[in-house]
Amino acid sequence: MSGKERVLQLQEEMADTGADVMVMRLSENVLLTTGWFVRYSGTAISIVPSQGEAILVVPEHEVEEAAEVFDGDIEAYPALGGGPALEAAVRSAANALNAHGGHVGFEGSFESIAPSSFFGEPSAVAAPTQELIRRAFEAEALVDVTETLERVRAVKTSAELELIQRTNEIAMMGLSAFSRAVVPGATEVEVMAEVERAIMTEGTGHKGAEWVRGFATVWSGPQLAEGWKFFRGGRRAIEPGDAVMIELGTVADGYWSDHTRTVVSGSASKPLNEAYEAVHAALAAALAAAKPGATASDVDRAARLACKEHGFTQHAHHTGHGTGFCYHESAPFIQSGSTDQILANQVIALEPGIYSAELRGGVRHEINAVVGSNGAVEIATTENEFEV
Amino acid sequence: MSGKERVLQLQEEMADTGADVMVMRLSENVLLTTGWFVRYSGTAISIVPSQGEAILVVPEHEVEEAAEVFDGDIEAYPALGGGPALEAAVRSAANALNAHGGHVGFEGSFESIAPSSFFGEPSAVAAPTQELIRRAFEAEALVDVTETLERVRAVKTSAELELIQRTNEIAMMGLSAFSRAVVPGATEVEVMAEVERAIMTEGTGHKGAEWVRGFATVWSGPQLAEGWKFFRGGRRAIEPGDAVMIELGTVADGYWSDHTRTVVSGSASKPLNEAYEAVHAALAAALAAAKPGATASDVDRAARLACKEHGFTQHAHHTGHGTGFCYHESAPFIQSGSTDQILANQVIALEPGIYSAELRGGVRHEINAVVGSNGAVEIATTENEFEV
Repeated sequence: MSGKERVLQLQEEMADTGADVMVMRLSENVLLTTGWFVRYSGTAISIVPSQGEAILVVPEHEVEEAAEVFDGDIEAYPALGGGPALEAAVRSAANALNAHGGHVGFEGSFESIAPSSFFGEPSAVAAPTQELIRRAFEAEALVDVTETLERVRAVKTSAELELIQRTNEIAMMGLSAFSRAVVPGATEVEVMAEVERAIMTEGTGHKGAEWVRGFATVWSGPQLAEGWKFFRGGRRAIEPGDAVMIELGTVADGYWSDHTRTVVSGSASKPLNEAYEAVHAALAAALAAAKPGATASDVDRAARLACKEHGFTQHAHHTGHGTGFCYHESAPFIQSGSTDQILANQVIALEPGIYSAELRGGVRHEINAVVGSNGAVEIATTENEFEV
Repeated sequence: MSGKERVLQLQEEMADTGADVMVMRLSENVLLTTGWFVRYSGTAISIVPSQGEAILVVPEHEVEEAAEVFDGDIEAYPALGGGPALEAAVRSAANALNAHGGHVGFEGSFESIAPSSFFGEPSAVAAPTQELIRRAFEAEALVDVTETLERVRAVKTSAELELIQRTNEIAMMGLSAFSRAVVPGATEVEVMAEVERAIMTEGTGHKGAEWVRGFATVWSGPQLAEGWKFFRGGRRAIEPGDAVMIELGTVADGYWSDHTRTVVSGSASKPLNEAYEAVHAALAAALAAAKPGATASDVDRAARLACKEHGFTQHAHHTGHGTGFCYHESAPFIQSGSTDQILANQVIALEPGIYSAELRGGVRHEINAVVGSNGAVEIATTENEFEV
């Protein structure tokens, strides 16, 4: 879990990026390179030199816990010293690495970001961090290494796959709660709250997870057909026969999953059941197509074709995307026209959807899968949700 | 709620910033300038010209809802067109404003950010947005207007105060649930989940709020004395006599509050009760000191002095901070040495804390208040929590 494998990968790429050293402050990339889940947004920094081991900078009171997951050098600073104390610690690390001057790689293009363990207030990298790096390293220039970080982390290590598996298992606790909570009379927000409660109370402690949280949106009934675009659950009470859909992001100690389920309160109408079968056919086709060597658009095409063969048109939104270090990773982007490569050990979310007024709602089913040599394999599953 | 007052304020400041036009993409600043709570992170942009009305850019399916809160021009783009479609819409808005060339103000230094209504995946402003602005405006240069935005928004309008009041009322629903949920045997995460459930299910719909969420951390017992620094609630079961503390961020349609409460499972020990009184004396002193014309360090000093007069030393962490457009606003920062000005209609959070092994835990009590001519006034309150 120390991120050593990641450090070696980044060092192999470093010369090509034009950087002499890389500095990470986003929670997701500190996690990538050190295994440390940032406690309070923006308070940790990891430094990967061109050779040798990474250094992790954290507040003093976190050193003991950081040393449990990261076995390289840790540079500590007094938390109440704020930015200046953090900067002094980074300068000290730069000295230790003899990394002053030269070109420093930084996270210049991350806009969609994952929160630290202080989930309500994430931290980005903008001008202040660039200035901090510039001063602490007496840098000649900063080099944006976003593309390298995003590409490298799209393929997961075995240790990361275990942690993403854990998050998926916790998400299933939430999806089981979802199936139980969908009853006529329950409101959308009541179902959302119940799913999030199950994830937090059952997931915390699961295989040692410490910071566990779900982000659920629930839609129900005919309004789902167009309303899914708004990512808003409200006080609508579920009615018998409604299609009820959940969008669920789950995070456990910084590792994410992304799921959708659709259930019916009671029995599904025949058209809704047929749409459900079409979505599942699309998923099966996408899993089979997601082999190393394929492109993301091959996977997208397979899903849409299978859906069509079942008499439905898959919605034009993307068929899927990478996931794991955040809710939606940039690569691979599984959509028509995408030239992103499918590679072994990528974690992908697949989410074909069909929505229409005729269906009085719609169906989306989203799974997370790991790419293997014979196609992608779903990480965790739930029972079949529909009965006619 | 249209943000018109904010547009006029920014236009008054614009010449001083060196910008000819200002472009906002962070949820909190789109909200500030248009009243629109961004639905999906990064999908909306507001443009404030040097004169005349702002333009709001949103996906096509959101136009109808956007027009309910923003009565200026709305530029729509197809959501599935992604970045290029958004950029074309911004270019079209720049054309309509005849704002090509020149210096374009942007959000260059926001690192601690507030999420959109898609809470699990916030969006920051980094190189891609800068490039989008540069191209769409054919900008001669970009100018960082962060300082102006942060300063202007620290003082709230009457419409914003009403919406922050609403969030505070919803937070109280969560804090009432907290008091009820703290019973021997309940685990910290069970209490957290119950508070968040109450906020979501009781708060949604309160005075029309549509996206309501709490972010709670609960600590209990002796570990609180040092453990509060980790912002982590776990599976520890509450024991009789424990001090139990909650840190709670609450958001309703983009407006935030920040509260802390400490309760005791059963009766409080005499020392804990005395610490509770000292914290409340610090709060009363801080409220009284928070008058227009004072500096933030005056407020901090008043709190620490009152605490000392009650026989305790207030912890060195800040006494308070601005809040409202995000969990923690940068101004005013209420800490020793801060020269930030206290101004009428600022919303401030005050949070003196005392933690020690001798107390077997600690006490923090955090309130949100509006600065008025005779001091700051608490926005919403709960009952007294302690009994000896």
